[in-house]
Amino acid sequence: MSHTTGHHDQQVLQAHPRRTSVDEGALLGCLEACVACAQSCVSCADACSAEADPKMLAKCIRLNNDCADLCAVTARILTRQTETDAGIVRAALEACAVACAACAAECEKHGKHMEHCRICAESCRACEQACRGMSSAKASA
Amino acid sequence: MSHTTGHHDQQVLQAHPRRTSVDEGALLGCLEACVACAQSCVSCADACSAEADPKMLAKCIRLNNDCADLCAVTARILTRQTETDAGIVRAALEACAVACAACAAECEKHGKHMEHCRICAESCRACEQACRGMSSAKASA
Amino acid sequence: MSHTTGHHDQQVLQAHPRRTSVDEGALLGCLEACVACAQSCVSCADACSAEADPKMLAKCIRLNNDCADLCAVTARILTRQTETDAGIVRAALEACAVACAACAAECEKHGKHMEHCRICAESCRACEQACRGMSSAKASA
Amino acid sequence: MSHTTGHHDQQVLQAHPRRTSVDEGALLGCLEACVACAQSCVSCADACSAEADPKMLAKCIRLNNDCADLCAVTARILTRQTETDAGIVRAALEACAVACAACAAECEKHGKHMEHCRICAESCRACEQACRGMSSAKASA
Repeated sequence: MSHTTGHHDQQVLQAHPRRTSVDEGALLGCLEACVACAQSCVSCADACSAEADPKMLAKCIRLNNDCADLCAVTARILTRQTETDAGIVRAALEACAVACAACAAECEKHGKHMEHCRICAESCRACEQACRGMSSAKASA
Repeated sequence: MSHTTGHHDQQVLQAHPRRTSVDEGALLGCLEACVACAQSCVSCADACSAEADPKMLAKCIRLNNDCADLCAVTARILTRQTETDAGIVRAALEACAVACAACAAECEKHGKHMEHCRICAESCRACEQACRGMSSAKASA
Repeated sequence: MSHTTGHHDQQVLQAHPRRTSVDEGALLGCLEACVACAQSCVSCADACSAEADPKMLAKCIRLNNDCADLCAVTARILTRQTETDAGIVRAALEACAVACAACAAECEKHGKHMEHCRICAESCRACEQACRGMSSAKASA
Repeated sequence: MSHTTGHHDQQVLQAHPRRTSVDEGALLGCLEACVACAQSCVSCADACSAEADPKMLAKCIRLNNDCADLCAVTARILTRQTETDAGIVRAALEACAVACAACAAECEKHGKHMEHCRICAESCRACEQACRGMSSAKASA
């Protein structure tokens, strides 16, 4: 597929009347990591419920759901550039990183046997790292 | 209206196969404060954009949107009772409280002239308090 | 719990600078039915995954998730009163009603043995009916 | 940015224990159009509120908000592959297409003067077309 969301998101951010003061590349990377992780977690929760033994995946489903919700909201907050409140951004990034770390740890347990958990663990680790990076950049700004 | 969401939410929580270990009254109060605040914030953002001078309300709209998103997600996280991760709950409550405090402070500036801001500020303060209460109860549990 | 969301939502709607042209009681009833059903569905999906045999509940979990998402979004759309597009409202109400009907039919199969499914089926039927009522009122307006 | 969401979403769909019966390319295209449009609409609503004269953009903001919500939910519904209810998918695609068409029409009015509206109109048209395509494929399946 030739269309990359990355390019689209960059256009979107650059069209805003108030350009962001933070590093645009870091912002874009974090935004896309949140969007991708939200997708992976919705998919992994759904895939887990279709597995032969979903009972042993109850924790994975729960963490996927919480993580999907926090990633999606963090993406929305990062997308907005008007009158940004740094404290809210930082707290959302922190909550997102905590959820990603917990979800990654659980998915990693199942990643050898279930491809959706393996992919989801990767998305979660990437998102956790991006959120922690953004959060410390914000804190020192 | 005779139907109270409070009664409904209580039934819902009590029907879960895994009963919560936290104080059920506090959980219900916090859950409903999040649901009510999400509603107030969606409505206040929308009402602000219809005011005679929305430009001076840009910060209010932004905070309403972020706060609505975080309240809605926190409500979903608090509703789930399966394999709860205390760290995620705590971080979501913290992010929600930070957003509620910022949104309340902004809405309070406009509350004398705009009833939707007055109501929204009240919802935000109630939700901030409920989240802080839940968060410290969680931390000491 | 003495605080009713109904009263709160009424205050919120009445504080909007543009009062709605539709029957306010019907709007409030539908809005609250959507909010309550979103909560029931999030809770039922989560409760299903914690049951002894979640495999037989895969369809219920899926319908709960879709229904929760559509109810939550329909509530947000109904809450907004600025420059309402009747076609969007009607299509959202229709999608919400379709999801509620499907989710109710599935939950009713399990309602005798699982209280969360019984409650969720009731919320779904109430929301389906409210959305159908609003949708025909909108269509004839 | 080298990471494309398209590739990621494809991996995610292909890792699901129940492979979809619909054309995978069409599903992926629609899913990504919904995700991209949700992002554009959140951003455009936010950018509109920061413009010199947001009052004339009240309709744009409202349509952006409704469209963002419906696109995000449709993306989540399309991502899930377990026990799919074709009626729900079709109704969600229809609601999403209706919102995209209305939002595109409004954004097109402002696209000459505001880049965020121009980009958002494009995302909305692409998403409308993708949803209509998926919906008729679903209807004939």
